[in-house]
Amino acid sequence: MNHLSHSFASDNYSGIHPTILQAISDANCGHDYAYGTDAWTDKLNDLVKQHFGKGTAYPVFNGTGANITALTAMLPRFGAVICTDKGHIYNDESNAPECVGGFRMFTIPTEDGKLTPELIDTQAYGFGKEHRSQPAIVHLAMTTEVGTCYSLDELRAIVAHAKKLGLYTYIDGARLSNACAYLNCTLKDIADTGVDMLSLGGTKNGLMLGECIVVLNDEFDANMKYMRKMTMQLSSKMRFISAQFVTWLESGLWLELAKHSNEMARHLANQIQNLDGVTITQKVQSNAVFVILPKQTVAKLHEDFYFYDWNEFTGEIRLMMGFDTTIAQVDELANKIKAYLP
Amino acid sequence: MNHLSHSFASDNYSGIHPTILQAISDANCGHDYAYGTDAWTDKLNDLVKQHFGKGTAYPVFNGTGANITALTAMLPRFGAVICTDKGHIYNDESNAPECVGGFRMFTIPTEDGKLTPELIDTQAYGFGKEHRSQPAIVHLAMTTEVGTCYSLDELRAIVAHAKKLGLYTYIDGARLSNACAYLNCTLKDIADTGVDMLSLGGTKNGLMLGECIVVLNDEFDANMKYMRKMTMQLSSKMRFISAQFVTWLESGLWLELAKHSNEMARHLANQIQNLDGVTITQKVQSNAVFVILPKQTVAKLHEDFYFYDWNEFTGEIRLMMGFDTTIAQVDELANKIKAYLP
Amino acid sequence: MNHLSHSFASDNYSGIHPTILQAISDANCGHDYAYGTDAWTDKLNDLVKQHFGKGTAYPVFNGTGANITALTAMLPRFGAVICTDKGHIYNDESNAPECVGGFRMFTIPTEDGKLTPELIDTQAYGFGKEHRSQPAIVHLAMTTEVGTCYSLDELRAIVAHAKKLGLYTYIDGARLSNACAYLNCTLKDIADTGVDMLSLGGTKNGLMLGECIVVLNDEFDANMKYMRKMTMQLSSKMRFISAQFVTWLESGLWLELAKHSNEMARHLANQIQNLDGVTITQKVQSNAVFVILPKQTVAKLHEDFYFYDWNEFTGEIRLMMGFDTTIAQVDELANKIKAYLP
Amino acid sequence: MNHLSHSFASDNYSGIHPTILQAISDANCGHDYAYGTDAWTDKLNDLVKQHFGKGTAYPVFNGTGANITALTAMLPRFGAVICTDKGHIYNDESNAPECVGGFRMFTIPTEDGKLTPELIDTQAYGFGKEHRSQPAIVHLAMTTEVGTCYSLDELRAIVAHAKKLGLYTYIDGARLSNACAYLNCTLKDIADTGVDMLSLGGTKNGLMLGECIVVLNDEFDANMKYMRKMTMQLSSKMRFISAQFVTWLESGLWLELAKHSNEMARHLANQIQNLDGVTITQKVQSNAVFVILPKQTVAKLHEDFYFYDWNEFTGEIRLMMGFDTTIAQVDELANKIKAYLP
Repeated sequence: MNHLSHSFASDNYSGIHPTILQAISDANCGHDYAYGTDAWTDKLNDLVKQHFGKGTAYPVFNGTGANITALTAMLPRFGAVICTDKGHIYNDESNAPECVGGFRMFTIPTEDGKLTPELIDTQAYGFGKEHRSQPAIVHLAMTTEVGTCYSLDELRAIVAHAKKLGLYTYIDGARLSNACAYLNCTLKDIADTGVDMLSLGGTKNGLMLGECIVVLNDEFDANMKYMRKMTMQLSSKMRFISAQFVTWLESGLWLELAKHSNEMARHLANQIQNLDGVTITQKVQSNAVFVILPKQTVAKLHEDFYFYDWNEFTGEIRLMMGFDTTIAQVDELANKIKAYLP
Repeated sequence: MNHLSHSFASDNYSGIHPTILQAISDANCGHDYAYGTDAWTDKLNDLVKQHFGKGTAYPVFNGTGANITALTAMLPRFGAVICTDKGHIYNDESNAPECVGGFRMFTIPTEDGKLTPELIDTQAYGFGKEHRSQPAIVHLAMTTEVGTCYSLDELRAIVAHAKKLGLYTYIDGARLSNACAYLNCTLKDIADTGVDMLSLGGTKNGLMLGECIVVLNDEFDANMKYMRKMTMQLSSKMRFISAQFVTWLESGLWLELAKHSNEMARHLANQIQNLDGVTITQKVQSNAVFVILPKQTVAKLHEDFYFYDWNEFTGEIRLMMGFDTTIAQVDELANKIKAYLP
Repeated sequence: MNHLSHSFASDNYSGIHPTILQAISDANCGHDYAYGTDAWTDKLNDLVKQHFGKGTAYPVFNGTGANITALTAMLPRFGAVICTDKGHIYNDESNAPECVGGFRMFTIPTEDGKLTPELIDTQAYGFGKEHRSQPAIVHLAMTTEVGTCYSLDELRAIVAHAKKLGLYTYIDGARLSNACAYLNCTLKDIADTGVDMLSLGGTKNGLMLGECIVVLNDEFDANMKYMRKMTMQLSSKMRFISAQFVTWLESGLWLELAKHSNEMARHLANQIQNLDGVTITQKVQSNAVFVILPKQTVAKLHEDFYFYDWNEFTGEIRLMMGFDTTIAQVDELANKIKAYLP
Repeated sequence: MNHLSHSFASDNYSGIHPTILQAISDANCGHDYAYGTDAWTDKLNDLVKQHFGKGTAYPVFNGTGANITALTAMLPRFGAVICTDKGHIYNDESNAPECVGGFRMFTIPTEDGKLTPELIDTQAYGFGKEHRSQPAIVHLAMTTEVGTCYSLDELRAIVAHAKKLGLYTYIDGARLSNACAYLNCTLKDIADTGVDMLSLGGTKNGLMLGECIVVLNDEFDANMKYMRKMTMQLSSKMRFISAQFVTWLESGLWLELAKHSNEMARHLANQIQNLDGVTITQKVQSNAVFVILPKQTVAKLHEDFYFYDWNEFTGEIRLMMGFDTTIAQVDELANKIKAYLP
C-alpha cells in the first residue's frame, strides 16, 4: 500500500529501522509488567544514566507529548516559557501548551531559531509582578526547527544566564541525536551544560514511535510519573517503546543514523549552494536544507518529489533527510534542481 | 529480559499477536505520508465504515487518550459526563478529565458498573441552571471495568433515554471486542443503538498499542482532528498504528481473540464457582473473573501467579485473561486455587 | 425598583448593612493605590492576624472565586479534593473546579453535609499510584450547605486525621461567621484547629460583595498573589472591598449579624418543629431551616414568600434568614405555615 | 486612611463618582433576587439595547474577567486570538488566557497598539491545519493600552477583513467610553461596525467596580450565562453592580466623565509637547499621555507625584488622567515638568 518510494518531506515519513523492528519483535516474548515496570524500561533507565551521566527516563508517545508534559511539570501554574517564534511548540502543537499545560509562551522573533542571553532578556522581566505571566523556563530546541544547532558554548552561556535569572532550561530534543552528530559530542556533554530537562527523540531517527523525557534536575523527578499519566502519555505496554530505545542506544544507532542524515543534507547543500538562483537560507547543521529556489523550479520539483513549502511569502522550501535517505536519492534531487533552474 | 512466563494481571501484560507484528513489519516498506494521510489509515477508515455501517476513525495512542479526546470534543466547556463510580475514567485516568478536558464527572454508585435509565436520572438534572455543571454525556463502558456487559436492549434503552434528556452517549470500548464476543453481535449492532461516539480498543486485544476513536454522530466530525492534535494524541508515523487495526479487522482477529479470552474466563469460573470459600462477585461476561477467596488462599496464589488485588477491604481479586492465555494455564490456576483452599 | 419586601430565599437576597455602606463611602476619599497595596487592605491584614492569631488576607470577589483560587493554590496538578456531595463547590460552581483549577473532587455521600475521619478514609487511598488522582486536600464547609456545623472537636479530629494522611485542610467559610456564632467561638479557635487555609465570607453577612481568602499555613503564601490574579479575582479598586471587611471586623458586625440570623432560624424552628406535618430535616445550627412540609402547604407559602425548593423528590424546602430578617417576618412565616398545614 | 491626594498612576486609583455611590445606596432598599434576576439588571439590559441598538448585558467583576470570559465563550478549544503585543490581555492578565480559557494568543508587534488588516494577515493563516492553533478571533482594544484609538473607519475595515477570513471580532472596552468621547460617536456606532462582542468598562470611569460584557452577535448568547458562572464572574448581589451601570448610562456620566479625562490628557499634552527634552510617544487620543523625559526630570517628578514608568529601556512614563483629575492638578504637573527639565 506504500505510495512514496522516497521523499524529502520529513524524517517522520521514514519507516522503522530494521534493527529497531527486530528489537520490538525480541521484546514480544510473553507477558511482562505494564506501565513501565518492565525490564526494558529498567534497562533504558540504566542506559540513560550511562549516556547522560545522570537522569531518569520517562518514555512517552510523541514529541508534543514530551514537550508539554516536561514543561508543565517544571512550571508553576502562572509560569511562562520563553522560546523562539520558530519553535515546534509554538507553531505545531495546537493549543496543547495552553489547554493541557495552561502555560504562556513568550515568543521571541529570530531568523535562525536560536536564542541568546540578550534575546532572553527581552522577555525575562516582570518577576514578582503578579500581572505578568512569570517567566520560568527557557525553551531551546536542539536542533532547531529550522535545522540550526547551538554550539556547546552557546548552550552553556544560555543555561548560565538562565540560572542567574532564576529560570530553568529545557531542550526539545526531537532531533537531539542530529545535534550530537553535528557537534561531535556526547549526550553527557549536553547534560553537563546544566540543562534541567530534555526530550530525546526517537520517532524521527529510526524508531516506530517513541520519545523519552530525561529528567536531569532531580527536583522534578518526584512528580513526573503523575504528570505523564495526567497528560495521557503513559503507555501500558511500555516495553515496546523502551525496547526500541534500548537497542537504539546500545547499538549506537541513535548517533549513526543521525550522522547519516546530517551527511545527506550536507551532501545536498554542497551540490547546490553555489548555483545561480539558489539561496540556502539556514546554516546546514543537521538533516535539513532550507532553500529558496525560483518558483518554476519549485513547481517542477513538486512533480518529482514530495516535500514541504516552508514559507509561502518567500518561496522557501524545506528538504529533509531521513535515516534511510540514500546518496543516490540526494544526487537525483540535486540533479533535478540543476536541471530545473532557469 | 522477560520476567513473566504468564500472568493473570491484565490483558495489557500480553505481548503483540504475531499476525499484528507481521502487519507492522509489512507496513515498514519505505516512506509514507505522516499524521494519518497514509494509505493504511485510509483503509482503516473504509473498514470502520464497513464494520460499523458508518463513522470516521481517529487512531490514537491509548485508552485514556481516546476517552478524554472523545468526551472533550463532545462537551461544552461547562458540561458534565455522567458515569459510574467503577469507570476507568474515574479511577484510573488521573486528572486528565479535569486538566485536559476541563470537565466534571457525575459518578453514580453501582455494584456491577452498569448504568440504567433510572440511575442516569439521579444525576440528569439542573438543565438550564448555570450554577450546576450541565449534564451532557452519558458515558458507558463495554465491557465495564468489572467485566460485566450491557445487553443490546439495555444499551438501546439507555441511548433512547439519553436522547430524550438531550444527552449524548459515549462508549469506552477498550474491550468492545469482548463485548461483541459475549453478545455474539457485530460492531454495527453497537452502532445501531444510536451511540454518538465510541473508542475501539486494540491494545488489550492483540495490538502493540493503539485505540481508535470512532465518530458515529457526524456533527462531531469536523472538529475531531483539531481535538486529537490538541490532546497530543496525533501520531506522526500513524501508519504503524493503522496497519495493526487494518489487519486486526480484516483478519477477524479482533473478534477471535476476544472470544478466546472470554472463554478462558468462563472456563476458570466454571471450575471454581461451586467451591466452598469461593465467591465470584461479578457476572463473568468477558475476560475477567472477579472473586473473593480466603486470605491465605490469595497469599499462596500470589507466590505462583501475578494478579491484582481489587478491593483491599473485601479481599476481592481480579483474574484477567489475555488473548494468549491457554487452557493449560487456566487449569493450572484453577487447580492451585482448589489446592490452596482451606 | 425593589420587588421583594423580604424573602427567605438566601442570605444573598439581603442588601448592604448601613454601617458597611458607610465604610464604602468613607473609603471614597480621593485616590489610592490599586490592586491591594492600599491602606485599607493593609489594615485588613492586621485585623486578620489579630482575629485568627496569624495568617494573610487575600480579598476576592465571590465565594466560588475564593474556593477555587485557594484550592488550586494548594494542589499539585494531579491532586484531588475530598468533599461531601452536599458541597457548594460540587453543586453550585459549574465546572470552575475542573476548568479553572483542573482538579478532581472525590465526593462522599452524606446526609448532613459533614465529613468524618472514617468518611475521609473511604476516598483517601491510592497514594503513590499515578493512575489515581492523588488525594491532597480535605474540603470542609463551616457552616455546611445544609446549615449544619462541625464542633471544634470534630474539626480538630478531621484536621489531625488529614495531617496523618498527608492531606491539607481547607474550610469554605462563606458562612464562617455563622459557625462562630453557633459554636460561640473565636476565629482564632478555628485557626487553632490547624486548618491550612479558609475563606471568610462577607457577601452573605452584610457586605455588598467580598470574600477573603485567609492563608494560615504560610507555605502557601508566596504564590497566592499570582494565583489570585490568574483566577481573575484581583480587584483593582480593592480598597472598597477591604474597607468593608475592616469595618465589619472592627465593629464586631461580623459576629453580631451572624448571631442574629442564626437566632432567627432558631426562632422559626422553635415555632414549627413540633407541628404535625412538619419535619425539620437538618439540625438548625446556623441561619437556615430545612424542612419538609405537605405539598399544598408549600404551594400556598410560595404565594406569600420567596424561598427555594431544595429537593424536588422529597418536597424539602430551605428557609434562609438574612442579617436583616426580623422577628416579625419570622413570626409571619411561622404563622402562615401553621395556617396552611392541612 | 487615604495616602494619595491625587496621582497620575492609573484611572483605577480614582474612587467612586458620588452619583454612582448614591446609586449603590439607592439600590440598597431591602431584598432582591440574586445572580442577575433583579430589576436593576433587567433595566441595564434595556439600556444596553438602547445604547448599542442590540445586544445582551452580562455584568462581571473586572476587566480580566470580562476579556477571558468573552473570548473563551467565542472560541473553539483549539482556537487562537490575534492581538497586539501591547494588549492588556497579553501583558497584564497573568496566565488567565491559558489557564482559564485554554487559548493561544498570536501577538503582533506594533508601536501604537493598533492592528490593521495587513497586520492581521501576518497571523491569520494555517486554517484547516490541525498542527496550528486555529485563528478565530481578532482582539482589539478601544482605546488601546497605549492610549490610541481606532477610527470608526479603521474599525469597520478590520471587522470586514476579519469576517472575510472567517474570524470574529472582540473589543476590550475597558476604556470604551474614552474611545466614544474621542471619536465623538455613540455606542451604537461601535456596535454598527459589526463587532461580535465587547466589554464596556466601568471601573476606570467612575464605578466602584464593574465591567459589562455586551454580546452583540446573538449566536454567542445562549452559552454566556454558563461561561460567566464557570469563570467565577457571576455576582450574587448583582444589583449593586448593575445599579451603578444603570445610573452611569442613564445620567450620561459614562460619556461625560470620559470626555473630561480625555480633555485633561489633551490639556497636559498641549502644555508640554513643544518643550525641549519632551517626546510624546503616542498620539493623545484618550486619557493618557505617554512621554519620554530626561532621566533626572523623571526622578524629580517621582518625588512629587505617583505615576508609572512604562518602559525601563527608553525611559518612557505614563501619565494617566482620571474622571476626577482637575485642571489645577494637570497644571501643577505641567509646571513641575517644565521646572524639572534640564
